[in-house]
Amino acid sequence: MFEGNEYFDGNVKSLAFNAGEDKATVGVMAAGEYEFATNCVEHMTLISGTMSVMLPGSSQWRTIAVNEMFIVEADVSFTVKIEVDSAYLCLYK
Amino acid sequence: MFEGNEYFDGNVKSLAFNAGEDKATVGVMAAGEYEFATNCVEHMTLISGTMSVMLPGSSQWRTIAVNEMFIVEADVSFTVKIEVDSAYLCLYK
Repeated sequence: MFEGNEYFDGNVKSLAFNAGEDKATVGVMAAGEYEFATNCVEHMTLISGTMSVMLPGSSQWRTIAVNEMFIVEADVSFTVKIEVDSAYLCLYK
Repeated sequence: MFEGNEYFDGNVKSLAFNAGEDKATVGVMAAGEYEFATNCVEHMTLISGTMSVMLPGSSQWRTIAVNEMFIVEADVSFTVKIEVDSAYLCLYK
């Protein structure tokens, strides 16, 4: 029913579900730096822990607060930096 | 690294992680009614979707809003009612 996925040798794991009309995942990330590629616009919210993001075209890390959402455009790569176990929600638009 | 669990024939799935000093899970629930038993105090937050909860000693459903947290005492059972795919965060205190 709910598909689970893991990435980066299990340092990132997610569970897929439907959030209204959007596909969505909740997931967890261990401390580390991870580059993701998008196929669609993504709305990413930090649920627990810490997260910094470097968005395409930026050379600076942006610190994300718990419950803060940031938007990533489609067909780009972006990098997140995690300092402690963290959890996120991602909506695929 | 992150332990996954499933309950109720896969209608509830979770990923365990550390949220500071607390053990925590993020998870997803399909539409349905589920009874859970607690071993410790739990702080439960609805991340996405819908949730109603019937807490011990209550005979009424309490509707939980997205980002709302409710507390469940240790060593009790409580029931949640889910109407659409939903995601939650649970902290074990």
